[in-house]
Amino acid sequence: MSQPDAQSPAERPGSDGFRTEHDSMGEVRVPARAKWRAQTQRAVENFPVSGLRLESAHIAALARIKAAAAKVNAELGVLDGDVAAAVQAAAEEVAAGRWDAEFPVDVFQTGSGTSSNMNMNEVLATLAQEKLGPGGPVVHPNDHVNASQSSNDTFPSSIHIAATGAVVHDLIPALTHLQAALTGKAEEFAEVVKSGRTHLMDATPVTLGQEFAGYAAQVGAGVERLRSALPRLAELPLGGTAVGTGINTPPGFAAAVIAEVARTTGLPLTEARDHFEAQGARDGLVETSGQLRTIAVGLTKICNDLRWMGSGPRTGLAEIALPDLQPGSSIMPGKVNPVVPEAVLMVCAQVVGNDVTVTTAGASGNFELNVMLPVLARNVLESVRLLASAARLLADRTVDGITAHAARAREYAESSPSVVTPLNRYLGYEEAARVAKKSLAERKTIREVVLEGGYVERGLLTEEQLDRALDVLRMTRP
Amino acid sequence: MSQPDAQSPAERPGSDGFRTEHDSMGEVRVPARAKWRAQTQRAVENFPVSGLRLESAHIAALARIKAAAAKVNAELGVLDGDVAAAVQAAAEEVAAGRWDAEFPVDVFQTGSGTSSNMNMNEVLATLAQEKLGPGGPVVHPNDHVNASQSSNDTFPSSIHIAATGAVVHDLIPALTHLQAALTGKAEEFAEVVKSGRTHLMDATPVTLGQEFAGYAAQVGAGVERLRSALPRLAELPLGGTAVGTGINTPPGFAAAVIAEVARTTGLPLTEARDHFEAQGARDGLVETSGQLRTIAVGLTKICNDLRWMGSGPRTGLAEIALPDLQPGSSIMPGKVNPVVPEAVLMVCAQVVGNDVTVTTAGASGNFELNVMLPVLARNVLESVRLLASAARLLADRTVDGITAHAARAREYAESSPSVVTPLNRYLGYEEAARVAKKSLAERKTIREVVLEGGYVERGLLTEEQLDRALDVLRMTRP
Amino acid sequence: MSQPDAQSPAERPGSDGFRTEHDSMGEVRVPARAKWRAQTQRAVENFPVSGLRLESAHIAALARIKAAAAKVNAELGVLDGDVAAAVQAAAEEVAAGRWDAEFPVDVFQTGSGTSSNMNMNEVLATLAQEKLGPGGPVVHPNDHVNASQSSNDTFPSSIHIAATGAVVHDLIPALTHLQAALTGKAEEFAEVVKSGRTHLMDATPVTLGQEFAGYAAQVGAGVERLRSALPRLAELPLGGTAVGTGINTPPGFAAAVIAEVARTTGLPLTEARDHFEAQGARDGLVETSGQLRTIAVGLTKICNDLRWMGSGPRTGLAEIALPDLQPGSSIMPGKVNPVVPEAVLMVCAQVVGNDVTVTTAGASGNFELNVMLPVLARNVLESVRLLASAARLLADRTVDGITAHAARAREYAESSPSVVTPLNRYLGYEEAARVAKKSLAERKTIREVVLEGGYVERGLLTEEQLDRALDVLRMTRP
Amino acid sequence: MSQPDAQSPAERPGSDGFRTEHDSMGEVRVPARAKWRAQTQRAVENFPVSGLRLESAHIAALARIKAAAAKVNAELGVLDGDVAAAVQAAAEEVAAGRWDAEFPVDVFQTGSGTSSNMNMNEVLATLAQEKLGPGGPVVHPNDHVNASQSSNDTFPSSIHIAATGAVVHDLIPALTHLQAALTGKAEEFAEVVKSGRTHLMDATPVTLGQEFAGYAAQVGAGVERLRSALPRLAELPLGGTAVGTGINTPPGFAAAVIAEVARTTGLPLTEARDHFEAQGARDGLVETSGQLRTIAVGLTKICNDLRWMGSGPRTGLAEIALPDLQPGSSIMPGKVNPVVPEAVLMVCAQVVGNDVTVTTAGASGNFELNVMLPVLARNVLESVRLLASAARLLADRTVDGITAHAARAREYAESSPSVVTPLNRYLGYEEAARVAKKSLAERKTIREVVLEGGYVERGLLTEEQLDRALDVLRMTRP
Repeated sequence: MSQPDAQSPAERPGSDGFRTEHDSMGEVRVPARAKWRAQTQRAVENFPVSGLRLESAHIAALARIKAAAAKVNAELGVLDGDVAAAVQAAAEEVAAGRWDAEFPVDVFQTGSGTSSNMNMNEVLATLAQEKLGPGGPVVHPNDHVNASQSSNDTFPSSIHIAATGAVVHDLIPALTHLQAALTGKAEEFAEVVKSGRTHLMDATPVTLGQEFAGYAAQVGAGVERLRSALPRLAELPLGGTAVGTGINTPPGFAAAVIAEVARTTGLPLTEARDHFEAQGARDGLVETSGQLRTIAVGLTKICNDLRWMGSGPRTGLAEIALPDLQPGSSIMPGKVNPVVPEAVLMVCAQVVGNDVTVTTAGASGNFELNVMLPVLARNVLESVRLLASAARLLADRTVDGITAHAARAREYAESSPSVVTPLNRYLGYEEAARVAKKSLAERKTIREVVLEGGYVERGLLTEEQLDRALDVLRMTRP
Repeated sequence: MSQPDAQSPAERPGSDGFRTEHDSMGEVRVPARAKWRAQTQRAVENFPVSGLRLESAHIAALARIKAAAAKVNAELGVLDGDVAAAVQAAAEEVAAGRWDAEFPVDVFQTGSGTSSNMNMNEVLATLAQEKLGPGGPVVHPNDHVNASQSSNDTFPSSIHIAATGAVVHDLIPALTHLQAALTGKAEEFAEVVKSGRTHLMDATPVTLGQEFAGYAAQVGAGVERLRSALPRLAELPLGGTAVGTGINTPPGFAAAVIAEVARTTGLPLTEARDHFEAQGARDGLVETSGQLRTIAVGLTKICNDLRWMGSGPRTGLAEIALPDLQPGSSIMPGKVNPVVPEAVLMVCAQVVGNDVTVTTAGASGNFELNVMLPVLARNVLESVRLLASAARLLADRTVDGITAHAARAREYAESSPSVVTPLNRYLGYEEAARVAKKSLAERKTIREVVLEGGYVERGLLTEEQLDRALDVLRMTRP
Repeated sequence: MSQPDAQSPAERPGSDGFRTEHDSMGEVRVPARAKWRAQTQRAVENFPVSGLRLESAHIAALARIKAAAAKVNAELGVLDGDVAAAVQAAAEEVAAGRWDAEFPVDVFQTGSGTSSNMNMNEVLATLAQEKLGPGGPVVHPNDHVNASQSSNDTFPSSIHIAATGAVVHDLIPALTHLQAALTGKAEEFAEVVKSGRTHLMDATPVTLGQEFAGYAAQVGAGVERLRSALPRLAELPLGGTAVGTGINTPPGFAAAVIAEVARTTGLPLTEARDHFEAQGARDGLVETSGQLRTIAVGLTKICNDLRWMGSGPRTGLAEIALPDLQPGSSIMPGKVNPVVPEAVLMVCAQVVGNDVTVTTAGASGNFELNVMLPVLARNVLESVRLLASAARLLADRTVDGITAHAARAREYAESSPSVVTPLNRYLGYEEAARVAKKSLAERKTIREVVLEGGYVERGLLTEEQLDRALDVLRMTRP
Repeated sequence: MSQPDAQSPAERPGSDGFRTEHDSMGEVRVPARAKWRAQTQRAVENFPVSGLRLESAHIAALARIKAAAAKVNAELGVLDGDVAAAVQAAAEEVAAGRWDAEFPVDVFQTGSGTSSNMNMNEVLATLAQEKLGPGGPVVHPNDHVNASQSSNDTFPSSIHIAATGAVVHDLIPALTHLQAALTGKAEEFAEVVKSGRTHLMDATPVTLGQEFAGYAAQVGAGVERLRSALPRLAELPLGGTAVGTGINTPPGFAAAVIAEVARTTGLPLTEARDHFEAQGARDGLVETSGQLRTIAVGLTKICNDLRWMGSGPRTGLAEIALPDLQPGSSIMPGKVNPVVPEAVLMVCAQVVGNDVTVTTAGASGNFELNVMLPVLARNVLESVRLLASAARLLADRTVDGITAHAARAREYAESSPSVVTPLNRYLGYEEAARVAKKSLAERKTIREVVLEGGYVERGLLTEEQLDRALDVLRMTRP
């Protein structure tokens, strides 16, 4: 069998800080200290595009696959036990984030992520070789580290693992935390009555607590949405190798590797029910991105409400006060702005755009592979990460510190002409409209107009019924 | 109580084909034959925007709410039994599509859909009044037809009912039908071996049947996606009335109306768990739209594959033949094009754009209401309808008629240099690469190069192992 | 009745209301009265997708090409003069909108629009044949009406002509009209001072007139944007025929046809500089759609400002009053909502989504043709039409009727703590911030705090300077 | 080392590696070595969101404004000459990229970019103070560095300057470079005749050179698009300060600063024609983003064509060969993939998504400010940078190295049944269709079928006319 000559003299570092490596296309000069080898170096040179690298969590997920694959390959007799153990140990170090600097390949690379998969194979081969020592068996990036695998199944699997992990371990807890903060305020503000607003116009009363409970429900529904997509996000193409058929993979390999990764990550990972769907399409990522942007849509509504309720202090609604976090203006002294809701709104706009990138990329598969994988990974993982940070930030630095201007809020509730609504049953819709308009035109309260209008006198309702009907807090719990 | 004087002389048709109606803002001239009244007419005049009206299924859904509300209002003592029965009967006629022409209001209207809700209230009041006869009790659009309701809860509820109905009764069956057609072809093509393609480049073999099974799995996953979103799509804001508090609604009203609509439609409708979330946000529509565009993404991949596999007849891949449906060119005689996949691809592009409209509109709520309801309705309902038509069309007019060019496909499978892949285990990855390159350069088969290269002689593998390794159909079932 | 039976007796209408037509694929039964023939009928049956037809302006544009082509074909000796004259006359009738009902093909059809082009060819052949009479020469849809043309150059040309016409004759005038309305209000409100708002928080004063002038500038910039894209939108692929080479077209044909269409439409149409770009890509539509959605973005901002300024009447900002157009609520009597801005906002959301459809479709070309043409046409033409209607509606039914609550606006201006800003030069930013915060905390005016704080006493500024600095109207014209 | 302690001893570094700074809200602990001060530190703590910082070119643009503002402030007597000179010198160092590490604030921060503007003000104050020495005049971030400015005009101006610079100095040259590479290939391939393809189906012949010239035209039109948007992109809000009125700015300031920045950058910068439009809206960025994604749409089409033309080597179209850059598969030996077109396609998908973020953010302005500025900056600047890198990469690593498989291409041209098209004039469309179908069915050439069909015998055309009509290279230049 051919020799990759990993330690041959030709590859020893030269005096110029480079060493020579080779791959199936020929020789390449690689920085002497780099753990990576020829194919990584080609990719670094081929893709000077964005300066962006894979997300750290993505590298870790790929390393976990390699660790598990080495272990299972040894169990199935594909790899020598020593080599497998060395690869596994190296992969665990990479999964722990220790070697992130050895992954220099740009996100905008070959669409299969082969360059990053080979980067991983090469770094692990080098690290394993170092563990095995100069006299140890040779570790080849393809023949050993990549044994029983292809970029086409491991790389998309690594995206799904990283995304599932980020959703389960990061975003869902962050949303749950935000939901709790909102629920806390819903309870605190349960009696703070204010004017409802529809079309931005005065409507019948609600409590501030009802609004916050609504926000909490929105955030909680976001968690449901993520959970409902998980079964398809957590489905891995692993085992399909090159084209979904599983060529060059021993029986039982995929199931065992996935079980091992599920064990080490605590994630509900499963093997693809159809390996051709699982490599040709990336619909599971597209679906999850759809849920992420739905969450972003919800947060947009919440943050806009908070900004408007806190607007002022003198010329806005000023129903609540958001915590003061920093001076708001470089020119207007004393100004304080809703900076965290703004940051969250920008996150939401980013997530909405990332989702369109994911949609575009997700629709670009052909035959046995979607070759938009790294850009899918970047956008899905960034969206999850941004939303998780934003949710925690919103909870801790804004929601928790909100206070209500209860007196002003009640004043609003009582002045809204829509408090006439409960009188429909006594006066009918059209007569009630006349009362409301008169109240506005003459700047009188609804109560005054009703009394002056003689409706009580004429027996359409009693004064007691009138007062009961006009109790704004009662209107919020009909 | 005030009189809407529905039959008063002032409102009798004039000699000019118009009659005069009034509402709380004053008088309006309405076409004499119209069943609608003043507010509808105002809306017709206020919104000469697109010429588009609500989808017929949407009108039906709103009518079903009105029918159920009349029934329940009578049961709860809010409405007189005769009036309720007349309104219910009228609403059932509207739900059956009989009066669609009486709904002239533009989609681009007030964002709450109040104009369309009032259009419904007015038409039903007129129809009910006609049923009750000149001597019968007066039916008022607001006080009777709209009793215990607000546009703000009924109109969004009508969108969710229409969308749930379209998903359950139209799109899911259509996708299931397409899935079955694809599965049928997967079985038919189970032995048709061909070259896999990744990055559009020759890869290891697959069967055409495996590819079609993958498509079927994609379509089946689309059904799962829709089902997973249904619990939140089928949640109705009904009962919240103006701002979510349920003001002016008797206890038990919402639950009873929803049960009745669920019964008449056979849909799994439920009452909103939080009525403030349910009116302030429309995230359930945004989520469903995300699933729709995920399905569109899947269909895009499938249609592109079909188009490419059918490309030619002489200068393309020509692995399959799509049915000839119509002459393809006004200038190139004899040309036949993949017209149905193209139509489906255009549907998918439309659904992807509609989804962004839904996202934009969904993020635009403020406080107690999202006032982008009609445009949300238009885009979600159109997407469902287009996808259902497209799925059926693709199944019936393309997939069912596909035939394979099996000989050509096998020729491809055997000529792909990637069939060298199973030799990795005997030669190692790098030596196998040399064999593949030589095969290409010298236009020889892999088998020839291996034999000439002396690998068998040198005992790396036997000729039997070689032949077994190079059996392309075996490679698809390793 | 006229006879489309030039081909053969077999095509005479049967007793069942159908007649038999044929094309290069065989026979088809067509409704006896239809002016269309076999290929149209196949398309009707092949594409039961959306129920949507081409926009009327699109049919007219295609007819104008046919009229001009017939004329030029006669001049160049390709067509007999009588046949050409009959086709031209028929095409002019179609361009005038007289035969729209004869174009039943769905938007979601073959991606080249060949079905619609053949629909046009067939209808014109029938109409021309009718003009020429039973004894006249035969008019063939392909050989005569389509002479020197292909769907691949005429159909995209028709989209560009229709879009250019809609932009030049409809949207630009509508935007100019809106700009004038806004400018009128800018003048009317030149002295209405109010509090500026940044981050929704109180800022230094502006006049309402300055805001409206800003809106007018935004709308005016939209016109510039459209004009800047016109040179590429008005470039036509005509003359390229099947693949851009101009096969089967006589020299001079394209230039002469385009000149003729430019003459009859008054549009600045030009021939494509590169015919391969012009058929393979549709970037000119994508660019124009980008400008349309930029205009939509501008209108979104304007409408949101108007809605917020008009919010209230009691619990909102209430700086302006929008005209009352219709009752706002089916349950809350007397409520009036900003319905036109809402309709415009929904238009904007639609245009933003349509733009993504256009982007998706525009990126889908392969080799010598983009086969997403009808969906591109639908979305671009709808966006232009919706924006034009919306701009006119906004001008006429909202902007023109806006009145200012000048006293309330001035009260806001004077109460904003940011009026401290001009004192920076006297006190420095940090001391000014202290003044602003004290003013808020103690509910005093800035003037009071400055006087009480002894800044005048200590000679940092004179009382005259203070008063001059705190003049809110002066602050708007520094 | 230099001391940022101009304000007070309390700010001297403590023994714990931190020093205490203060701003108008109180005290903050700042890393002892940081050049930034209190407000930057607050922002670092307030916005732990993405880990992303402003683009380097953006920091440079903001610094250029500060340098010019200091100079002009001195000229206008607002700043002391020594202070101004020190600030200017410091700003030039920042503009040169020397202090990028001192800008730690997250992109997802306050929507006005105030935190980044204050970061700049603080760093420049510190650096200027260091230049002036312990005995020099005090430099205050707000009162001196920010004099005559607000975040609200400088920060958006910095985005427009950075974007204009990136478009003019980076993207337009990169596109021009790609256009030249494509034009070079168009000339090289001028005689390489091949089958055209429409709907992916065989069509009449084109030359490979015509296709590449079409691509070059597409890229060239992209440059036109950018240039057409520049007048509005290069318009700066500078001079409007807080709300557009220019409060606290001396007359002539904006014009002089813009002239100075235009001089130092060589960019065609201008002052906003309407300062309220210029701060309330960011439509110029939205428009430019629309042009960027139009360019991305064009590159998508080009890269897909290249990928398909290069597909194979044995089972694809294989009309051209793309340069081999790296091993294509970790499992399939010898496989080479179109990796650069794939990277470019991923860039395009990113730009399309970024554009939606820009649209969403651009529509989110309220009143006197759009508070989505940093996310607008991130997405516009990233899109420009990615497209510029991608265009250069595509030119240098793919287009330049493309070779044609001319023999195979000609074989395709000759075998396409659409070469029958020039016979329409002799046989009519329907008869020509019969010939084409027979040719396909019987696997004969068109020439054979025509001769066998007796058309020549019957005198419909001569054999010479037939041969001339069937010359595929002639068909490309009719």
